[in-house]
Amino acid sequence: MYLAQPWAFLSLRTHGGFADGLLALSFHRWIKFEEKVEDGGERWSKPHITTLSLHSLFELRTCIKKGTVLLDLDAHSLKQIVEKVIATQIDAHVLRPEVRKKLTSVLLRTPQHHTTKSQLRIVAELGAACCRGEYCLGYHPHFPLSLSEAEVSNILVGEVDFLEKPFIAFIRLQEAVGLGALTEVAFPSRFLFILLGPRAKVKAYHEIGRAVATVLTDELFQRVACQAQDREDLIAGIDEFLDELTVLPPGKWDPTIRIPPPKCLPSPHKRYQRGKTQQLSGALLLKSRAGHTHGHQPVSEELQRTGRLFGGLVKDIRRKVPWYWSDFYEALNIQCFSATLYIYLATVTNAITFGGMLGDATDNMQGVLESFLGTAVAGAVFCLFAGQPLTILSSTGPVLVFERLLFSFSKDYSLDYLEFRLWIGLWVAFFGLILVATEASYLVQYFTRFTEEGFCALISFIFIYDAVKKMLSLADNFPVNWDYKINDVTLYGCICNSSGTGRSRLPPVGRQGLEAANWSLLTRTECLRVGGHLVGNSCNYMPDITFMAFILFLGTFLCSMTLKSFKTSRYFPTALRKLVSDFSIILAILIFCGIDAILGLETPKLIVPSEFKPTNSQRGWVVFPFGVNPWWVCLVSTVPAVLVIILIFMDQQITAVILNRKEYRLQKGAGFHLDLFCVSLLMILTSVTGLPWYVSATVISLAHMDSLKKESTTSAPGDQPKFLGIREQRLTGLVVFILTGVSVFLAPVLKYIPMPVLYGVFLYMGVAALNSIQLMDRIQLLLMPAKHQPDFMYLRHVPLRRVHLFTLIQVLCLAALWILKSTVAAIIFPVMLLALVGIRKAMECIFSQQDLSWLDDIMPEKDRKEEEEKLRSSQEKEESDSEDVSRAGKIPQDIRTSKPGKCDLDGITSNKRVAINASMSNWEGVSSEVSQGSVLVHY
Amino acid sequence: MYLAQPWAFLSLRTHGGFADGLLALSFHRWIKFEEKVEDGGERWSKPHITTLSLHSLFELRTCIKKGTVLLDLDAHSLKQIVEKVIATQIDAHVLRPEVRKKLTSVLLRTPQHHTTKSQLRIVAELGAACCRGEYCLGYHPHFPLSLSEAEVSNILVGEVDFLEKPFIAFIRLQEAVGLGALTEVAFPSRFLFILLGPRAKVKAYHEIGRAVATVLTDELFQRVACQAQDREDLIAGIDEFLDELTVLPPGKWDPTIRIPPPKCLPSPHKRYQRGKTQQLSGALLLKSRAGHTHGHQPVSEELQRTGRLFGGLVKDIRRKVPWYWSDFYEALNIQCFSATLYIYLATVTNAITFGGMLGDATDNMQGVLESFLGTAVAGAVFCLFAGQPLTILSSTGPVLVFERLLFSFSKDYSLDYLEFRLWIGLWVAFFGLILVATEASYLVQYFTRFTEEGFCALISFIFIYDAVKKMLSLADNFPVNWDYKINDVTLYGCICNSSGTGRSRLPPVGRQGLEAANWSLLTRTECLRVGGHLVGNSCNYMPDITFMAFILFLGTFLCSMTLKSFKTSRYFPTALRKLVSDFSIILAILIFCGIDAILGLETPKLIVPSEFKPTNSQRGWVVFPFGVNPWWVCLVSTVPAVLVIILIFMDQQITAVILNRKEYRLQKGAGFHLDLFCVSLLMILTSVTGLPWYVSATVISLAHMDSLKKESTTSAPGDQPKFLGIREQRLTGLVVFILTGVSVFLAPVLKYIPMPVLYGVFLYMGVAALNSIQLMDRIQLLLMPAKHQPDFMYLRHVPLRRVHLFTLIQVLCLAALWILKSTVAAIIFPVMLLALVGIRKAMECIFSQQDLSWLDDIMPEKDRKEEEEKLRSSQEKEESDSEDVSRAGKIPQDIRTSKPGKCDLDGITSNKRVAINASMSNWEGVSSEVSQGSVLVHY
Repeated sequence: MYLAQPWAFLSLRTHGGFADGLLALSFHRWIKFEEKVEDGGERWSKPHITTLSLHSLFELRTCIKKGTVLLDLDAHSLKQIVEKVIATQIDAHVLRPEVRKKLTSVLLRTPQHHTTKSQLRIVAELGAACCRGEYCLGYHPHFPLSLSEAEVSNILVGEVDFLEKPFIAFIRLQEAVGLGALTEVAFPSRFLFILLGPRAKVKAYHEIGRAVATVLTDELFQRVACQAQDREDLIAGIDEFLDELTVLPPGKWDPTIRIPPPKCLPSPHKRYQRGKTQQLSGALLLKSRAGHTHGHQPVSEELQRTGRLFGGLVKDIRRKVPWYWSDFYEALNIQCFSATLYIYLATVTNAITFGGMLGDATDNMQGVLESFLGTAVAGAVFCLFAGQPLTILSSTGPVLVFERLLFSFSKDYSLDYLEFRLWIGLWVAFFGLILVATEASYLVQYFTRFTEEGFCALISFIFIYDAVKKMLSLADNFPVNWDYKINDVTLYGCICNSSGTGRSRLPPVGRQGLEAANWSLLTRTECLRVGGHLVGNSCNYMPDITFMAFILFLGTFLCSMTLKSFKTSRYFPTALRKLVSDFSIILAILIFCGIDAILGLETPKLIVPSEFKPTNSQRGWVVFPFGVNPWWVCLVSTVPAVLVIILIFMDQQITAVILNRKEYRLQKGAGFHLDLFCVSLLMILTSVTGLPWYVSATVISLAHMDSLKKESTTSAPGDQPKFLGIREQRLTGLVVFILTGVSVFLAPVLKYIPMPVLYGVFLYMGVAALNSIQLMDRIQLLLMPAKHQPDFMYLRHVPLRRVHLFTLIQVLCLAALWILKSTVAAIIFPVMLLALVGIRKAMECIFSQQDLSWLDDIMPEKDRKEEEEKLRSSQEKEESDSEDVSRAGKIPQDIRTSKPGKCDLDGITSNKRVAINASMSNWEGVSSEVSQGSVLVHY
Repeated sequence: MYLAQPWAFLSLRTHGGFADGLLALSFHRWIKFEEKVEDGGERWSKPHITTLSLHSLFELRTCIKKGTVLLDLDAHSLKQIVEKVIATQIDAHVLRPEVRKKLTSVLLRTPQHHTTKSQLRIVAELGAACCRGEYCLGYHPHFPLSLSEAEVSNILVGEVDFLEKPFIAFIRLQEAVGLGALTEVAFPSRFLFILLGPRAKVKAYHEIGRAVATVLTDELFQRVACQAQDREDLIAGIDEFLDELTVLPPGKWDPTIRIPPPKCLPSPHKRYQRGKTQQLSGALLLKSRAGHTHGHQPVSEELQRTGRLFGGLVKDIRRKVPWYWSDFYEALNIQCFSATLYIYLATVTNAITFGGMLGDATDNMQGVLESFLGTAVAGAVFCLFAGQPLTILSSTGPVLVFERLLFSFSKDYSLDYLEFRLWIGLWVAFFGLILVATEASYLVQYFTRFTEEGFCALISFIFIYDAVKKMLSLADNFPVNWDYKINDVTLYGCICNSSGTGRSRLPPVGRQGLEAANWSLLTRTECLRVGGHLVGNSCNYMPDITFMAFILFLGTFLCSMTLKSFKTSRYFPTALRKLVSDFSIILAILIFCGIDAILGLETPKLIVPSEFKPTNSQRGWVVFPFGVNPWWVCLVSTVPAVLVIILIFMDQQITAVILNRKEYRLQKGAGFHLDLFCVSLLMILTSVTGLPWYVSATVISLAHMDSLKKESTTSAPGDQPKFLGIREQRLTGLVVFILTGVSVFLAPVLKYIPMPVLYGVFLYMGVAALNSIQLMDRIQLLLMPAKHQPDFMYLRHVPLRRVHLFTLIQVLCLAALWILKSTVAAIIFPVMLLALVGIRKAMECIFSQQDLSWLDDIMPEKDRKEEEEKLRSSQEKEESDSEDVSRAGKIPQDIRTSKPGKCDLDGITSNKRVAINASMSNWEGVSSEVSQGSVLVHY
């Protein structure tokens, strides 16, 4: 069920001058917000909130009171309408019969539409603005209906010289009819408002016209207008509208400012509730505030325990299976293509980086090729079968540390590393399956925002730190001669010197004469191969490379940032900007690869293994469980396996919690149990084949999701594009890992990509992931004087010092984690993540539940208590409110809450007369309550 | 005379719960805008516009109607006030005597102030917010009065359990008294509003309290409240306030959004006028629109012709003399120090650049030293005596082209260049003096925005182009070996080879043996000095320098931009941000000089001449008029002199017009005649001494002004800092040129500044100058879809296609000028500037006067016609309005326009009773006019 969006296409025309030279002064329209044809008539203004003077609303009220109100007029053309309206007024002796002809001709004058847009374009624009309301049609995001049902209201105001008093008419047609050229778009009209008056007041008429339009675009008034039976009903509707107005004081606000539409609007439902809460007593208000459960997320369906073995896993599978087919066809979008390229490059770079480090740590028992192969196989399998296929698997830091320790332990005690590792892996998989069977994943509820953010920030910092470290080590590999003197160019040089042993004194070409000359013709590698060595003060320096590398690094980073934010710039059409933003990282990579290729310097390039064989020739593709190590090793392995399973569980599940955050609006649900199940099974596979172990990678997965964000592009002018969710599918991930697998054959293409460009992408990913967490906002608050701080909701409710304290604790935890992971103690890192949950728990002693509910989530146990309390207090509330509510709004509840639909007049008659209480008694009611007097107040 | 700013310090406290546990719910204050103590009570919210519900205003109206109103109560403490108010109510039988004690104790309860700020800080803050109004004091930017006169209003609302009906009181004290702890600040209070009511409605009471506060901070209501004689007067004031409200429709606006204070507020004067314009008839409205003279600048006093010889010059001197002393002491500000450093560096760089080019063009007859000397002398003299001392003199492009042509002409015809030039200079000075005598500067009125922008954009583009060109030529001077292969390091080298003539084969050290070894020890310069030459494939390459230079160049530019915009960031206190912003360029220069010094690469540095002697030894310091050339040369010189005087006049005056733009709010006036007079006299000086000719330099002068902008720092919370003008003084310019003169002695310091850093500053200056012109905004519009375009005022009034056409014409003119100045025809460049005025004139055939008035200024002749027409139409308007105006506002004009002052009650009695028309008849008046009925409408 979707809440209705109040919507109407409304046009207002104001004419000035005399009847013979009827001159259009202005033309306005309301699709959702007000737009005005600017002076010169070629341009719609930006959509803005309609600001009125209270004046004009009261004048409108008088107009409805005094003017002709024709409800359910049976007419099928403008001519008929005009004739009937004039006849009514003449019959009532309000209009002199002499002016009938003049008036008819003025009203039937075909208006000139002030717009540069063709009819077609406007219809197309409207087609985009699917909507619901009396004037419009059912709104369902998945099935935008055809607009044949949309309706238009028309307002005509102006001054003429032959009238002494204003000619006012409010008309509702029995059936909506097309009024031809009167309406800007080819939709039928149901409501018309006409105000023609004597000279000299056109500005006031114009304001009344705007007031009618504003009232008619109001969702509640639309219902009233559709169901009204007489003038009094309409006036009651206006009074209700007046009652809900927000007013801005004069002198503090310039009325000519056009207020842009807000990011989010109050739902009509909320407006209905307003009457209720307004009357709360102080004591109750305090209570309802204390019980504020804003941050509270009820335990999601995915994490409820079934109590059966593998119950969670079964539920996960049942939940995911129906989506399986859509997981593939929903990937048919250009955005997925961009995401695939982006994540592919990130994954390949990651595989190379980790592969290199693993090779280093394990004497190439696991090297770059194993890393590629493992990433491809594990990733692809995970994407095919996991609960959350948006997750990207990768080697992670803690696993790397563990492998290093394990390898050196094996070496010290002469154990076979791969066989030992196989047993650990099998045990880990076994423990993992136990965790799945016992539905242990329900524990992730305890990972509140505090834990998530700590983990996410840490991983992001590691990304940034690694990117910079890589760049600095690159500068070490390509040293710059900082002391280079231009004047000393003749003194620099590097020659191949043969002053080694006698045997290698001669170059291999031959041992003839001209020896020296021959030596000097050898390149660096040739020289070293034949055993010479390099002598000279320029041998160790490599000009320009480092500078070029830094330019590429920072350039890629800044270019990605700029292109990403291009979406919110003002230039070029939305579609183009969105495309550029979606492809920002790919574009940045291409641009800087291009620059690098054009300049042609020998910057370090991406080099992937091009042969398919184990990096270390001593190992094969399958590890056998017995053979080298003593038999008891398979039992001893349980000890490290416990450590690893904690690591895997924490790493995997925190990432899963982050990816399944409510704000990403995932439709297909999470699969915590299924994910862990897949990871456990993959443990077996990777242990048997001696490939690295894989677990969810936070930063790359976040980048993956970020590149798959869906936003609404189609909306009424002024509506903000809405975040609709993520393109949840399995194809992008799958293709990424297949591409990773076949990268061995892509080596000739990939070798054009400079490493600094990829490090720039890593830097971007780290910064982007950091920006997505609230912690960074709060750290920025530390640097801002209170008066410049943005209007965050939690700042409205939590004292600043508490916010700062919360931030500081988080930062301290982060620092502790950072120090920990930099030392050998890194292996107990996952245990420290558990400690984070403990610290968060302990913070309940320092912070009030209310503060925590704004800054973090409530921990599960408290949750239940809260809910109970809420229930109790809301019961109390209802009791004490019952009296007030009856006074709150005079429009009966059945109009306020009735399902919006077409003006069904037969329906209304059967519903009896709609009881709309006329008169402004609702104000009087409240006022007299304050004064406790019984005298009616007349304004 | 400054317009009053409505202001009041107002505090609102809402209490809830029961009398025994009176619990503060919220605390608000209004200094100019509303601030709320956020939940938790430690923090003032951001100041925001008070948004109310119409509801609460009507309730307030009822409160004033039904409650106790005590005007001119004679009480000197809160206790007295409370006692008297309660007594009044008991006497009137509104209050049961039993509650007297309870009520008194509740009202006298000392409130807890919810603020983290100490009293002192708030007073200091208030001291900053100088203001005027009933509650405050005279406002004069130059003499902020002491705040001893400021007044506070207090509003107390809350719920108690012992009352059955609300206790309402509006109190005005006869004399403002300090109420001790009740008020947050130690200012006396005059107004109090008390609303205590029975349980369960505290939220409504709170809203009424906010409504009182909003009404009391309204400037017009303040006057009413101060002079009111009874309840009816107050109600009339509220009605008047209601009449001027701006309202926002429900459903389209979320009432919880806090609206930040707008950039500019309507002046109370404008509010008074509102009533007038509102009632305009359509026909008149059209007329008044067509005659809109927004862009129109009346001929300023400086440019009115006196008709006497040298009349303008005399007037200029008379205008400037009274400011002369202040031109020095007003420079005593840290901002001037920053500006001096910044402009000094720009001037020195410019002097070196132009000096180098001039030396190139004139065979060093005018070289870098002459450029330094000339800049220093001419600039200092100009700053001392000119009409607009913010102008920075410099050599300009067209002058350079002329010198080049003149020198080659002299060479071809064997004339003495300096002597020929002397005569031209003397004639130019003579023509210049004639232009001054005939007040020709009045012609600058024809330089409309169109011409100014064309010129300014051109000069800015030249700056940017030159900066980039310099960087590229630097890359040519320090070539990068793009084909460098790391592997071939052994094959690169550069040796000093002696293969020249036999004599120079041997190095000077001695002609002993080991010849080859000696040669190889020579550096580049030594080698070339002894006649050797460099052989090798690395001789022509200089590693790293170019990359480093580009990093410095772009770094300085980006750093300047970032630091400049730091002022508008949210971080750190305002004073610090302003300091950083003011010193942005100096900081950027220092940062990148530091980086350069630390890295220590041999980047090209700023080198100033360190010896004081003519660059070319063939010339002296004085040029004699006769001697070398034939006598008739002095007559022939008139021909080029005419060309030069057009050039000088155009160059000088367009820059002067740009610098004296209205938006810079210069207080001391321009001096077009005096400036030209100074330039003419300097022509004589520089011609006689053979120094370059100088004229105003647009971009550097704009940078100079930009670095001297004054902004108001002290204002009520939420007030936007206002641009107050420029620090107009002579000292910064003077010091800049003195420093330029002594730069010869500063060489040891200046040699640490790398040239790329200075080119970065030039790039920044060009971009900053470009950003200051509307043309760039309009060019950006070309790339934006209409719906994303910003809400520029001219877009509201001129059709988009017309705007684009205007922009395109300007761009074409700019392109034509650019092409022209790049060819030899550059010498007729100033004539082309005149052509620009002609094109602008011709555009009046294509564009309507109204369009041009929005996009450009009106040309002078039209101006006069416009004015006449305006006069006529305004007369008509007044006639037809006379009737309406009387209805527009019911508050008599003497209250609306009376000078705000203290509540002087004796004064009022002598002024007779203030006739405030009670009742809402002003609405009824308007409404009934529309309906033409005579029945009174009761809401």
